[in-house]
Amino acid sequence: MTQPLKLGIAGLGTVGTGLLKLLSDNRDHLAGMTGRTITVSAVSARTQGRDRGVSLDDVRWVDNAVALAKDSEIDVFVELIGGEDGVAKEAVEAALEAGKHVVTANKALLAKHGIALAKCAEEKGVALNYEAAVAGAIPIIKTLRESVAANKIHRVYGILNGTCNYILSQMQDKHLAFSDVLKDAQEKGYAEADPTFDIGGFDAAHKLAIITTLAFGSAVKFDEVHVEGIEAITSADIEAAKDLGYRIKLLGVALETDSGIEARVHPAMVPKHRAVAEVSGVTNCVAVDAEEAGNLLLVGPGAGGAPTASAVAGDIVDIARGIVLAPFVRPAEALTPFKRANLDAHHGAYYIRLAVYDRPGAMAAIAKCMGDQGVSLESIVQRQATMGAESGAAATVIMITHETTEEKIRSALAAIEQDGKVAEKPQMIRIEAL
Amino acid sequence: MTQPLKLGIAGLGTVGTGLLKLLSDNRDHLAGMTGRTITVSAVSARTQGRDRGVSLDDVRWVDNAVALAKDSEIDVFVELIGGEDGVAKEAVEAALEAGKHVVTANKALLAKHGIALAKCAEEKGVALNYEAAVAGAIPIIKTLRESVAANKIHRVYGILNGTCNYILSQMQDKHLAFSDVLKDAQEKGYAEADPTFDIGGFDAAHKLAIITTLAFGSAVKFDEVHVEGIEAITSADIEAAKDLGYRIKLLGVALETDSGIEARVHPAMVPKHRAVAEVSGVTNCVAVDAEEAGNLLLVGPGAGGAPTASAVAGDIVDIARGIVLAPFVRPAEALTPFKRANLDAHHGAYYIRLAVYDRPGAMAAIAKCMGDQGVSLESIVQRQATMGAESGAAATVIMITHETTEEKIRSALAAIEQDGKVAEKPQMIRIEAL
Repeated sequence: MTQPLKLGIAGLGTVGTGLLKLLSDNRDHLAGMTGRTITVSAVSARTQGRDRGVSLDDVRWVDNAVALAKDSEIDVFVELIGGEDGVAKEAVEAALEAGKHVVTANKALLAKHGIALAKCAEEKGVALNYEAAVAGAIPIIKTLRESVAANKIHRVYGILNGTCNYILSQMQDKHLAFSDVLKDAQEKGYAEADPTFDIGGFDAAHKLAIITTLAFGSAVKFDEVHVEGIEAITSADIEAAKDLGYRIKLLGVALETDSGIEARVHPAMVPKHRAVAEVSGVTNCVAVDAEEAGNLLLVGPGAGGAPTASAVAGDIVDIARGIVLAPFVRPAEALTPFKRANLDAHHGAYYIRLAVYDRPGAMAAIAKCMGDQGVSLESIVQRQATMGAESGAAATVIMITHETTEEKIRSALAAIEQDGKVAEKPQMIRIEAL
Repeated sequence: MTQPLKLGIAGLGTVGTGLLKLLSDNRDHLAGMTGRTITVSAVSARTQGRDRGVSLDDVRWVDNAVALAKDSEIDVFVELIGGEDGVAKEAVEAALEAGKHVVTANKALLAKHGIALAKCAEEKGVALNYEAAVAGAIPIIKTLRESVAANKIHRVYGILNGTCNYILSQMQDKHLAFSDVLKDAQEKGYAEADPTFDIGGFDAAHKLAIITTLAFGSAVKFDEVHVEGIEAITSADIEAAKDLGYRIKLLGVALETDSGIEARVHPAMVPKHRAVAEVSGVTNCVAVDAEEAGNLLLVGPGAGGAPTASAVAGDIVDIARGIVLAPFVRPAEALTPFKRANLDAHHGAYYIRLAVYDRPGAMAAIAKCMGDQGVSLESIVQRQATMGAESGAAATVIMITHETTEEKIRSALAAIEQDGKVAEKPQMIRIEAL
């Protein structure tokens, strides 16, 4: 049997603890699967004393994550600290510089500094593995780096944030308002006290940046992704989607267009009879539309201690087996600069919800605004007029457009708003063709 | 750049032709992804002259697949001939003996001779890759061999045969009888002239044997899998499933039980709000329930020239990158002998459909037979009496049992049949808890 593989693990939160438990519970199994013993040489975390439910008796403590990263005894540095800069970045850099393999679950770090870190890993000939950074236990990084490597990829998309998917699923199944579900999600621990990072779509955008880089060989950073959150989705939208045969999901979508790559995170209407529509609660999914492989969909737990630890352990298994790939598969130098597509040119159908004043001529004026932009409608439904304190007597009007461009929709909605026939800002949700 | 990787491809049917096209269309892409040029040195097929829509001008022809397998010029032998014995087996053995890497899409060969071939590959230190043998483009082999390698697997299951899934989906969506859909599927090329291999469940059983071996580290052969086909599924079952909130799917399921491993292929009731239930038409899926990773589901095209070629190409990419794993990950010598679970001890709920003679006391007698075996019912529905030429006046009775054992169900149904209260053999479909 080969030499043991020695790990240094920095960060002992849910994932770090889950990893220690997995490595201990499955010690013999892992040796059978890799031909090597995998041992934890040393760990580093903010507080040493806390009971984590796993034995740390045989493990050396190193106070400083950066010192651990360079520790002469370790082969692999496992970074589970988190954060796009600070000690996580410093430690990963130190580990790579010292010629250690790195496994990380840190999406923010990769979405901001991934390319620079990849260059460093390539120079040193070590692995920088990050399966756990995107969609937890779902093997999307391996699928893109390896399984469909021979394909040209047309589109990747997915439900990349469990908090948002839980909230939208609960709104749909229990007929609750956004704010009530958010409160419940916070109580259950599915949402943070400050939920902006999740519900604003930023977490999903970090993950999308990483898989877009992999899928298209183009260096995409987090702040180049178009981001809209789910805060503006109302029960009226959820119910209308149901009636029309759709489900509303926060999707991350990346695809190649004539003008560049669209990389966008936003609420989207998904046809209800697609497997994606049935992905509910905190479950995540990622789909890959590839030239030869066709349409693949991977579904699974996108977060949580054990599933994320499983993905980290899978990355460690690869290293134990001697597998070292360039982090983004193509050499980092060969990645093309990101050419962002003009979202105004986005082609698709749209869901529109308007609160229309119940006055003669209102509908005709709205129809004219759409027609002036060449937007044709697949369906239009008027619901009962509702009395709102601010809006006066307004009827809900739901429209589904035929395929058009975002520019035309935005112009039509701007004209409708300016025309004064609606009581509030129009709601617009993209329909994703699946 | 490293030396080119030279392939010898045997078999130029749909998959072989698809592979040649992929390798030619994506030549530069593949070089970028692997750092090597991938070239086709020689091919072998039954007929040389036929127009296959791809240029073979630069490619050397070898008349004999076995000779190609040993050809001194090739690094990788790609076996796309098919068949569990004969020339496919002989050629793969010859290639491994000659120290060539092998990539194959041949499920029958692997389900029968996989372990012996694996031993040979391990001795020679070469790859025996077979992603394309199970579920086409779905990366289930890589997921089991690598992504969830650190996990203990509890269950693998899936829709592993596109022909059966197409037939069941059409019966459901178009309210057609089994025989009508089968005829249509044959006309469309989704089913063979002799459809037994697909609709009898044997194709799925080959695939299940392979993934069971991988998931549980136990050497399972095709003929050790319990197999039932879809021939006995009627429109009445499809409609009843719909009413009860289920879909009928031909599933392959393998799980560990106290008495051994259950490896079974049969029609099953699947709750309709699970992503598996929405996998329709020729699409396949495979699910993995793992200790730490949780429940993963992979969905995609399970057959077809391009998707299968994509999987073959992914295996070639691995070899081009220098990745060589033991075929079943654990050394073949370390695989445990297959211990087949007693299916009589299978635990689960059941769907039962009876054609009950419309006579006083019939239902009471049936209920007694169930009660005598300790089988309790979750629901029971009696449908309109139907007049059948052979059965006389019989009412359709649909029962869903609570969880029980297969032995008890079989005893109860045998007693019901013997009692003479039913006009035909009872229908029994397992409900798979998902």
